[in-house]
Amino acid sequence: MIRRKPTGSLLSKHRQRAVTGTAAGRARPTATPAANLNYAQVSANHALVDGAENGQLYQYETSVKKSFDAIVPTLRKVSAYQHEEDFVARAQALAKQELGYELPKAVLEDAWVEQLDMRSLFAWCVFKSYQLYCDDFFSTAPLSNTGLSKSGAEEFQNFIQQCGFHTMDVSPCADGRLAHAIRYVLRLPIEAVRRKSYAGAMFDIDNSIQKWVETEMLRFREGRPNTADEPTRYLKAVAYHFSSVDPSHEGCAAHGSDDALAAKQGLNRLKAFQQAIENSFCCGASIDLLLLGIDTDTDAIKVHVPDANGDIDLEKFVDAKDVYQQTQRLSVNDATQRIEQMVREAQAGVGEGMLKLISKLIINNLSQIEYVMNYYGSHYEDIGHAERFIGAGIGFEEVQLRNLTYFAYLNTVEESTADFDVGIKIFSKLNVAHGLPVPVVIRFDYHGQVPGSRERAIEHCQRVSDAAAARYSDLAEKGLLHTLLVIRDCNANGQIEILGSSLKTAI
Amino acid sequence: MIRRKPTGSLLSKHRQRAVTGTAAGRARPTATPAANLNYAQVSANHALVDGAENGQLYQYETSVKKSFDAIVPTLRKVSAYQHEEDFVARAQALAKQELGYELPKAVLEDAWVEQLDMRSLFAWCVFKSYQLYCDDFFSTAPLSNTGLSKSGAEEFQNFIQQCGFHTMDVSPCADGRLAHAIRYVLRLPIEAVRRKSYAGAMFDIDNSIQKWVETEMLRFREGRPNTADEPTRYLKAVAYHFSSVDPSHEGCAAHGSDDALAAKQGLNRLKAFQQAIENSFCCGASIDLLLLGIDTDTDAIKVHVPDANGDIDLEKFVDAKDVYQQTQRLSVNDATQRIEQMVREAQAGVGEGMLKLISKLIINNLSQIEYVMNYYGSHYEDIGHAERFIGAGIGFEEVQLRNLTYFAYLNTVEESTADFDVGIKIFSKLNVAHGLPVPVVIRFDYHGQVPGSRERAIEHCQRVSDAAAARYSDLAEKGLLHTLLVIRDCNANGQIEILGSSLKTAI
Repeated sequence: MIRRKPTGSLLSKHRQRAVTGTAAGRARPTATPAANLNYAQVSANHALVDGAENGQLYQYETSVKKSFDAIVPTLRKVSAYQHEEDFVARAQALAKQELGYELPKAVLEDAWVEQLDMRSLFAWCVFKSYQLYCDDFFSTAPLSNTGLSKSGAEEFQNFIQQCGFHTMDVSPCADGRLAHAIRYVLRLPIEAVRRKSYAGAMFDIDNSIQKWVETEMLRFREGRPNTADEPTRYLKAVAYHFSSVDPSHEGCAAHGSDDALAAKQGLNRLKAFQQAIENSFCCGASIDLLLLGIDTDTDAIKVHVPDANGDIDLEKFVDAKDVYQQTQRLSVNDATQRIEQMVREAQAGVGEGMLKLISKLIINNLSQIEYVMNYYGSHYEDIGHAERFIGAGIGFEEVQLRNLTYFAYLNTVEESTADFDVGIKIFSKLNVAHGLPVPVVIRFDYHGQVPGSRERAIEHCQRVSDAAAARYSDLAEKGLLHTLLVIRDCNANGQIEILGSSLKTAI
Repeated sequence: MIRRKPTGSLLSKHRQRAVTGTAAGRARPTATPAANLNYAQVSANHALVDGAENGQLYQYETSVKKSFDAIVPTLRKVSAYQHEEDFVARAQALAKQELGYELPKAVLEDAWVEQLDMRSLFAWCVFKSYQLYCDDFFSTAPLSNTGLSKSGAEEFQNFIQQCGFHTMDVSPCADGRLAHAIRYVLRLPIEAVRRKSYAGAMFDIDNSIQKWVETEMLRFREGRPNTADEPTRYLKAVAYHFSSVDPSHEGCAAHGSDDALAAKQGLNRLKAFQQAIENSFCCGASIDLLLLGIDTDTDAIKVHVPDANGDIDLEKFVDAKDVYQQTQRLSVNDATQRIEQMVREAQAGVGEGMLKLISKLIINNLSQIEYVMNYYGSHYEDIGHAERFIGAGIGFEEVQLRNLTYFAYLNTVEESTADFDVGIKIFSKLNVAHGLPVPVVIRFDYHGQVPGSRERAIEHCQRVSDAAAARYSDLAEKGLLHTLLVIRDCNANGQIEILGSSLKTAI
């Protein structure tokens, strides 16, 4: 296996300057490529793999993660000479060099009185890095490269319509190891897929019904994405997950690392949503279902192939890892045919549209399988949790990287205690156990054309921040929980707007 | 002014047996008619007033309220002989006679050990009365009388469609003095009007957009209530309120008893909703708006008449009290014509459909104006708050009586602290100041045909109950806050289902 490391610069300066770091007291694995080769040299082992895209995605992933992972080693160095005379100037020079930004001056200047408040400084740096990461994402669109520009999204929309679907709505688990499910694991354009993450992929049925209703209304009223008389359906997918390396410990926490249970519960939730639509609306209203499993160690997917009636049998699936092996030496055409054959063999009666879609998802996943093999070896080094922050609220379009964020789609803490508690539990091990705070980004996107929507987004942020501080008051009072409040006008397609944070110093 | 008191029996036995009571340490006003005449003798002073319906509505109102107001005097008597030997038997006999049900035996039997737990007993009785009240409502449909059966609802639906509207969606204030706004004040069939109450009538725009989307979808997809090509619109109404007797104290608490502000904020919220629809959807999507004021002392309405473009001027309104006086001696035809003329005079350009609708609302309100005059005099005796319990959640179709319930439409306590806090504040004066607990009914209706919806309704009840107990822990810990958990399958149109309560004894 040859591991390749790309170079090249799609990325903003601060990311370029970032260095690899190891988090306080824990192994925060970063990319450790075997050979320091140029991105341009990347070539694929498998005819269906997009080696060039792998290179770009890898560069983006490593540079973003490094910008977060440089925080702890940098602060550790800063801490070491906090009582020296030229401390402020030295600290700023180091921060600028290692992190790409200066630390808040007031905090540094007060260090001579007491010790540096490292908890606050750490949270401040995570939030600052998040801000720069978002600014880069929304100004340079780093994940909308070749074949995945706006026209890539249109292309995919056309493709799913040919397969018989007008909307693809995916609920992965809120687990950070699935945060890259859409753009990396499935290689889909993020603009063309609805993603709502929930602990255990246990999506909210009422919220999904609302989305279905809205989708149907827009088809009827505005012909978007197609007119209502076209025989396409709403496709709801669940992506559960499991660990091939340590199945009984590193699977889905919400299902007690029981893979069969995770799959079964995902299917049950899908069926309940389908039945809700069928029972609530007349005239043959229904939806189509898709169940995927993701191996969080290798990113290989398992697709449960529905039969002619759309029914899913948990035992009838295609494993993309097998597909990769069986098609590794075939030509593009032969491999494609073999894949379609494997899907058909898994479930003889599969519909033609569904067959096409599943084949595409599997083909896309082959690139990700090779991505992990090339850059990380037989599996990721961080097979467990290694998220950098918690994201809570509505939005987070920019979060498309594995183990960057534990994030949960939520309106209120009250309704989402299960999701939030899991996140806090994860970060209690990752951060709190080492004296570092849990950084929580609270984010509400809004539609700027709706009057008062910005004000309501601000209220939502404040409300969720207060509720989180109340629920986790033991952490908050010790400075072990910090929140950043962020909104974004998703219609204007602009930058994020930082409202404030629980820190004394502005970001 | 002749006041008439009806008799007759539309009502269940327990209500017939209920006696008039005065709440502990406070004046809980009940109906005090001047003359004890028979319902059948009711006749109207005004040609457009429905005297027979007034009689039925009055009988229903008084009997329900008496069933709640008998609790305190009954418990006071029970308390007086709690240490006597034949206490349990005497208490049960009295309760059966005065309240129509027996008290929980276990509580009575333990009274000799310590004092009777009056707080729990009071809450238990309120919840029991609520249960019986609901059972009666959903089995006998006491408010769907002549002209207001299911066909009455259909008739009204046809009427509003002729006026150019397919949906009438009203947001009154959560204040208990407006709980009867739909069925009493406006005399509309409850099945044909959407009602969502919020403190200060400050309805949730996002929730309203969802309802608009769903309504449009059903028109397009299922032709309900009419097909989408019919030129009708969604009508959103706000009902703010004020007090003619004590304007600076008994107006809307959410707007600091400032009538002009209440009206202005209501109008602003309406306009924001309209703009949200116009900006979010294409092809001329819009809604129509209506702003009403209700004088909570006399139930007379003020209707702000929109101009030809649907624009509302706060200064251009018709006051139904003036209408009543100016049309009191006219025939049905002359009075009707005069009312239409008054609406036109208020706003020359008013559209014909809106004119028809407003005229109907005013005509309906004349009956309520006379209702208050006949049964209560120049104004209600209880011009302030006198609610019997707080209702929180989604449902409460049965609550159509003035000052019975402070109720707020809510999903979570977290999002609805403003509404909930106002309710707790009201009951702190009404009950807690006299040592009695705040009784809170937490209710979630669900659509039985949607799988898992019952389970989710149960979860919602539990969640809101926990959140309320946490937010008002100072009250809850002292036994001064009690919650009843209730769900109902609104599709089956059946009885409520009691899940449990914060009390030790089952209801």
